[in-house]
Amino acid sequence: MSTFSLAVEAAIAETRRDVAELHGELVRNNLIVWTGGNVSGRVPGADLFVIKPSGVSYDDLAPENMILCDLDGDVIPGTEGSDRSPSSDTAAHAYVYRHMPTVGGVVHTHSTFATAWAARGEEIPCVITAMADEFGGPIPVGPFAIIGDDSIGRGIVETLAGHRSRAVLMQNHGPFTIGVSARDAVKAAVMVEDVARTVHLAREAGPLIPIPQEAIDRLFDRYQNVYGQSEDERR
Amino acid sequence: MSTFSLAVEAAIAETRRDVAELHGELVRNNLIVWTGGNVSGRVPGADLFVIKPSGVSYDDLAPENMILCDLDGDVIPGTEGSDRSPSSDTAAHAYVYRHMPTVGGVVHTHSTFATAWAARGEEIPCVITAMADEFGGPIPVGPFAIIGDDSIGRGIVETLAGHRSRAVLMQNHGPFTIGVSARDAVKAAVMVEDVARTVHLAREAGPLIPIPQEAIDRLFDRYQNVYGQSEDERR
Amino acid sequence: MSTFSLAVEAAIAETRRDVAELHGELVRNNLIVWTGGNVSGRVPGADLFVIKPSGVSYDDLAPENMILCDLDGDVIPGTEGSDRSPSSDTAAHAYVYRHMPTVGGVVHTHSTFATAWAARGEEIPCVITAMADEFGGPIPVGPFAIIGDDSIGRGIVETLAGHRSRAVLMQNHGPFTIGVSARDAVKAAVMVEDVARTVHLAREAGPLIPIPQEAIDRLFDRYQNVYGQSEDERR
Amino acid sequence: MSTFSLAVEAAIAETRRDVAELHGELVRNNLIVWTGGNVSGRVPGADLFVIKPSGVSYDDLAPENMILCDLDGDVIPGTEGSDRSPSSDTAAHAYVYRHMPTVGGVVHTHSTFATAWAARGEEIPCVITAMADEFGGPIPVGPFAIIGDDSIGRGIVETLAGHRSRAVLMQNHGPFTIGVSARDAVKAAVMVEDVARTVHLAREAGPLIPIPQEAIDRLFDRYQNVYGQSEDERR
Repeated sequence: MSTFSLAVEAAIAETRRDVAELHGELVRNNLIVWTGGNVSGRVPGADLFVIKPSGVSYDDLAPENMILCDLDGDVIPGTEGSDRSPSSDTAAHAYVYRHMPTVGGVVHTHSTFATAWAARGEEIPCVITAMADEFGGPIPVGPFAIIGDDSIGRGIVETLAGHRSRAVLMQNHGPFTIGVSARDAVKAAVMVEDVARTVHLAREAGPLIPIPQEAIDRLFDRYQNVYGQSEDERR
Repeated sequence: MSTFSLAVEAAIAETRRDVAELHGELVRNNLIVWTGGNVSGRVPGADLFVIKPSGVSYDDLAPENMILCDLDGDVIPGTEGSDRSPSSDTAAHAYVYRHMPTVGGVVHTHSTFATAWAARGEEIPCVITAMADEFGGPIPVGPFAIIGDDSIGRGIVETLAGHRSRAVLMQNHGPFTIGVSARDAVKAAVMVEDVARTVHLAREAGPLIPIPQEAIDRLFDRYQNVYGQSEDERR
Repeated sequence: MSTFSLAVEAAIAETRRDVAELHGELVRNNLIVWTGGNVSGRVPGADLFVIKPSGVSYDDLAPENMILCDLDGDVIPGTEGSDRSPSSDTAAHAYVYRHMPTVGGVVHTHSTFATAWAARGEEIPCVITAMADEFGGPIPVGPFAIIGDDSIGRGIVETLAGHRSRAVLMQNHGPFTIGVSARDAVKAAVMVEDVARTVHLAREAGPLIPIPQEAIDRLFDRYQNVYGQSEDERR
Repeated sequence: MSTFSLAVEAAIAETRRDVAELHGELVRNNLIVWTGGNVSGRVPGADLFVIKPSGVSYDDLAPENMILCDLDGDVIPGTEGSDRSPSSDTAAHAYVYRHMPTVGGVVHTHSTFATAWAARGEEIPCVITAMADEFGGPIPVGPFAIIGDDSIGRGIVETLAGHRSRAVLMQNHGPFTIGVSARDAVKAAVMVEDVARTVHLAREAGPLIPIPQEAIDRLFDRYQNVYGQSEDERR
């Protein structure tokens, strides 16, 4: 039986809907195959987040199947979906929420081109303006870390803390992205694959032209402050 | 309250429908991810054009959400959609309409292969007959220019004025295309990505065979004058 | 007013349906963008073939819009669709039907990887068993030829006459395929792009292992005689 | 007239449904073009398996069109679909079922990147964690073997017996995958193409970072025992 206030219950319900629906964006943008990706969203106003169950088809991702966890990554007993196991990446998501209080969403995929850069442990240089807009510079690489303890979460946080980029390429593994909301983290997941692909293809055909740092700074600044309809749009 | 004649109102309504619908072609042809592309169309018989709003999902692009601008890129107050911001590329579109009176449509995308050529600042050589048909020669590269003043619009116009190509690869940025109509500019956006991809792949496997200039000229001339059902088809 | 026997009228109607529907397979298999591909089918029992109109969207390809031609490529006046121009490649299709009496269908596309091989004028070596099955050896290259006379048709026929392959890569242009039926030619168009892509990717990563000629011969022979439900299946 | 017990009849019906439906996953995951792939499933509790008919469109793959075979690959006369020929790869599937009693499903495709590795006869190195999870190491290459006797089936079994990988790249041919169920074999087919593509792209841009064997072992062990909702999920 749930012990949350009505306001928190409402926020949980909305986060369940968002997180369930956003998995559809991973499919639509060709970021995942089979069950290999996950989205989570922090419940506004509570020390909780919602994440997908482990190993379940993307056709079955209804709001009521999403799983509610506390910031240690433990499933809240007695809540909808709590009879299933959460994503095997839950510990990494939880670590990010605990250590980055402004993060509202986390996404992990094995999207093809981003994972290819990760397999070489190579950061993606910032040579296209859309990348300067969105990430403000190169996409950094995080350490090699495997599932089983806090090392993935720690690697994400240590790489992204204080960095403009909302995406990190975990070595030999794949991209993790963060955002002010689950939707914003999904956008970062879509964009990191897009720039990973474009820069991969650009470079295999010849030398890239760098963008001057001053131009990168201006593009990033403008995009964060002007683009879109309002600050609310990213939430 | 609108101050246009009935004929202009009808032309605006039709342009809104065309521009809204043509964004669907960008999606269908895999030219854009998330919200990163835009189509505009000049209103026939008026110093006006219609463009998409900034940062809005492609699922929400109904005619009434399109934004009506004058040729300085200023939103016409009191018209449908005028409570939203127009695409952040509006100034570049407006510059093109002001300086190229026969242009009826402008399209901008970050399509993958065209943007890859742009990141190297390299023009696409004309080695396939479909490219000779459609563009009459190589796809040129425009200068590096960033958002904030007229420099993108000026770069497009200076590159394409007097050029056969309806597409320009703006360096480190991506393709802009023009046409006699919004539909024609969308076709150019589809075709520039297609030739960017084919020539990229062709060249990575070995030397390309050039097409003699005289054959390029004949193909371009025939295609402009004979192909399709009639001159009207491109409008 | 039509002057055909009832049997020929019925065969025309069926060919119109087949040809219209088969253009959908070009789209579904990602072989074409915009209007850049065409399918034709010979009318069984008559010196006629059906082909798509020029420059028309694939969404508008209904049977009644298909165009009926004689083997010189001239539109049969007074028949459905005869107010439109046939595909600009009609002369090439007609040439093939005139000179290859067992050909029942012809397809032309600018599919990406096949066109990339064509831009280098390089035949595709037979290094995968599916290619030995389907084409019995390498995919040959045809001459550079441009629209305006019989040179494309002649290039196709001279390259494919007596060759096992039902596909030819016309230099700097793209693939043409033939078959016992329009459906069989479409299958060849799908398969030539598939092998063009696979062999391109295989070779860019290292040396290919050739298949012994004797194995190619056995695979081709078996596939022509045993595969599928019956001889009728290809028709 | 059928001679099976009610329980076996029920198991056959369920296997027919599974196998028919799983062909849709090959299409959805872009593993096949035209009719070039096949899925089979062992009937639990009987020396039987169900496989698709030869050369039939994926649109026509209903349960009643699937073909029931014994473990020699012979069609069971008088059963639904038995008037058609089974897939030309039936002998290879049958060989696997006869010699690998724990295998419940077999899949064969010519998926692009996996076939590209096969055309070079090169195993895929294990450089991404998803590959360590799923396959426990590199994807091995099987011998060159052509249709007509047991050599393909023998090549699959000799390569995979005692190997962690559920996928083998048959040289110059393409991938075969096995699993505890038809669904599990389809998952392996999806994943082998995914890793074939990612590692291909990773390596063409520079040196790969190997994953230490000890980490591969831990990932494989965890994934086999912990991932997903339960052991049943793979069936």
